[in-house]
Amino acid sequence: MTLETVLERIDSDIGEATDRLLDLLRIPSISTDPAFKDHCDNAADWLVSDLQTLGVTTEKRPTQGHPMVVGHVDGPGPHLLFYGHYDVQPVDPLDLWDRDPFDPAIEETPAGKVIRGRGSSDDKGQLMTFIEACRAWKAVHGSLPCKITFFLEGEEESGSPSLVPFMQENAKELTTDIALICDTGLFESAVPAITTQLRGLLGEDFTITGPDRDLHSGMYGGLAMNPIRVLSKILAGLHDETGAVTVPGFYEDVPELADEIRAQWQGLNFDHETYLGDVGLKEPAGEQDRTPLEQIWSRPTCDVNGIWGGYTGDGFKTVLPSQASAKLSFRLVGQQDPDKIRESFRNYLESNLPAGFTVEYRTEKGSPASQMTIDDPAFEKARKALSDEWPRPAAYVGCGGSIPIAGYFKDILGVDSMLIGFGKDDDQIHSPNEKYDLESFHKGTRSWARILHELTR
Amino acid sequence: MTLETVLERIDSDIGEATDRLLDLLRIPSISTDPAFKDHCDNAADWLVSDLQTLGVTTEKRPTQGHPMVVGHVDGPGPHLLFYGHYDVQPVDPLDLWDRDPFDPAIEETPAGKVIRGRGSSDDKGQLMTFIEACRAWKAVHGSLPCKITFFLEGEEESGSPSLVPFMQENAKELTTDIALICDTGLFESAVPAITTQLRGLLGEDFTITGPDRDLHSGMYGGLAMNPIRVLSKILAGLHDETGAVTVPGFYEDVPELADEIRAQWQGLNFDHETYLGDVGLKEPAGEQDRTPLEQIWSRPTCDVNGIWGGYTGDGFKTVLPSQASAKLSFRLVGQQDPDKIRESFRNYLESNLPAGFTVEYRTEKGSPASQMTIDDPAFEKARKALSDEWPRPAAYVGCGGSIPIAGYFKDILGVDSMLIGFGKDDDQIHSPNEKYDLESFHKGTRSWARILHELTR
Repeated sequence: MTLETVLERIDSDIGEATDRLLDLLRIPSISTDPAFKDHCDNAADWLVSDLQTLGVTTEKRPTQGHPMVVGHVDGPGPHLLFYGHYDVQPVDPLDLWDRDPFDPAIEETPAGKVIRGRGSSDDKGQLMTFIEACRAWKAVHGSLPCKITFFLEGEEESGSPSLVPFMQENAKELTTDIALICDTGLFESAVPAITTQLRGLLGEDFTITGPDRDLHSGMYGGLAMNPIRVLSKILAGLHDETGAVTVPGFYEDVPELADEIRAQWQGLNFDHETYLGDVGLKEPAGEQDRTPLEQIWSRPTCDVNGIWGGYTGDGFKTVLPSQASAKLSFRLVGQQDPDKIRESFRNYLESNLPAGFTVEYRTEKGSPASQMTIDDPAFEKARKALSDEWPRPAAYVGCGGSIPIAGYFKDILGVDSMLIGFGKDDDQIHSPNEKYDLESFHKGTRSWARILHELTR
Repeated sequence: MTLETVLERIDSDIGEATDRLLDLLRIPSISTDPAFKDHCDNAADWLVSDLQTLGVTTEKRPTQGHPMVVGHVDGPGPHLLFYGHYDVQPVDPLDLWDRDPFDPAIEETPAGKVIRGRGSSDDKGQLMTFIEACRAWKAVHGSLPCKITFFLEGEEESGSPSLVPFMQENAKELTTDIALICDTGLFESAVPAITTQLRGLLGEDFTITGPDRDLHSGMYGGLAMNPIRVLSKILAGLHDETGAVTVPGFYEDVPELADEIRAQWQGLNFDHETYLGDVGLKEPAGEQDRTPLEQIWSRPTCDVNGIWGGYTGDGFKTVLPSQASAKLSFRLVGQQDPDKIRESFRNYLESNLPAGFTVEYRTEKGSPASQMTIDDPAFEKARKALSDEWPRPAAYVGCGGSIPIAGYFKDILGVDSMLIGFGKDDDQIHSPNEKYDLESFHKGTRSWARILHELTR
């Protein structure tokens, strides 16, 4: 009953584990603000020291930006890589916090105890669940259960500029059998989840120019084509009446959901009315013949993220503007190729420009979707471990957003990732009063112990 | 041959007339900027003194803003009112001027002599054409030809806030047989014109709200309806494929053009390709079954003057915004009722909002179109006078913009207006390097002498 002993150790150590987390949370490691550079460095040092106490050979590795923390511990197979990030988001607006974001504490709330402070959920609390599981294992067994590489980043909240070059330069060192990424959440704050598909992203930022100057709508209105009218028509034409995206060929490389995954998602009984109702909406807007979960997780989308043109100040100006602009993004799935979609969209746009109109693009790099191949038995083992720990069985879920790190592991290292995390929907990550439930921290740590047990027995 | 004598007097006096105009142009009477308040007052004083030299009983009349200049001279019928404005636009950006805007001068250009300076065309040069015609008449005849009321405003360039109250309070004093307004131009810089129809204006400034906060397009994209998508569809639906406006009932009170006016307009041989080509456009955008001049002058329109929503800064933010906003304006003609059009537009908009979406309007007052009844023989007399002076015969033309003053004369005083002016398309009014052709000033003055002759003989 060695797993039970490890879990008991986690339970008895939870107070000290929480103190360690509070200690790490006190370091204001805001990566995007150069004024906090030394603090980022201090957080990296803290992790190096802590991992060394577990017998992990750990170094702070310099980059052009904040350092990476890389640690190795030898052992029997399999070889795991664990990824988390020690940097945090800025804290503005500070006046909306009920406490100093870097003076964290355990608070009692009607829903139970929470760890309050910047980074508690994203991602220091999450990454410490794995480290605490390792600590308990080591305390019970004297060593970690298998060969593990720790890879902790300090620039995730500022676009990870050093990540790809670092992975490319150190590809051999970082290549393992599988990667574990702890930066996601429980499904609906309750169901343990392994995220196996992430949507890709393609941005298009462009300006349409019609007349070569702003015109007076009294002098030209009616006769001169208005770029905002042209833009509106182009944007309105991007969806048909069933909610499908009309860009030619858009759905060509979109796979149907596997029956097994479809059945699992149906079993989740996703309450889309509450999900939308919580933000003031009533009706799903996506493809009418797809379930709400499919609309978010496994179907591609097109959204306008910004639009501007003409006079937008107070009062009125009867201007017929020279230009109109928009920022669009496409969420991609399956094998959709960002370059192909971009080309098709631009053909559609340009074929709808009146004679003499021009368009200028401000190009953004696109990224394809990530789809994990769950054939590796590690996935089912992890799912069993999570199901054993939590009241409800674990599910393979999708994620509507893009978490580029999983794609990098696959593309650069050829390594599949299991994205497992314990955040809840109300953790207020990136916002004031960020928190991490003590339950997330405690059961998260126990979850990793169970996963290590399943993967290595 | 008394008219010939007056015209000869105008010709021989043109140098001194120009000097008087330069004198008036040196007063920086920018009405919108409180720092120039005393200068506005000085311009009013200048005009009072000048009119008094013509035997016109003239006063500077106080308002909440800049003063009105009101003068009366008795005589035989008809009783004419002459309107102009002595205030000018601001001069920014000053560095684009080739000379001090308030140090005016006669300049030689390849196209002939021009009077360069702020207000030369809009409207000091124009209003002085009428006063100089009166001066020559008085010099020849010893008195003016008929009963005339002079009504000169100092707030036209800042929205005329005092105009309506002043007209209401002094309605009896200002009521005449007909009003002459000198604030328009020659058609295509060459054809003398009497503007007999002006489009009205209805503004709609509104914000659509969908979700009650900005959403992450990864979390909600596909499932949550995007307000920019809703707004684009609403705006795109405002015109059909033939360029007609689709708001229900929009064309109900739009009259067909009288055959005589249609024939005159066709005779103008409007070169819409050059008109559009000059601002970088190639194709007319209005109703396909209407001529370009009808599209600008006698057909109602709908234009988006501004649009905004979501993230519009540098780079990308995958936000699914809570709100999207637009400013629309409708140019109205005939008997179109602004209130009725507003209601119909709002019904259309609201019937296209998804369940749970709301709209907030920032109301702007609408104004109906002005259509002069040219049955008054004064119109044909003035047209003859203009045709006698200029190489090409004069035409009744429309104006796509709104000149509220003509509507006020009609609504408050019951007086029809003849809008006659001599500005050219390249006068750069409201812009740096404003000018007025010496030809406009000289032949404009001669035109008024001819009009006075025709109206009073």
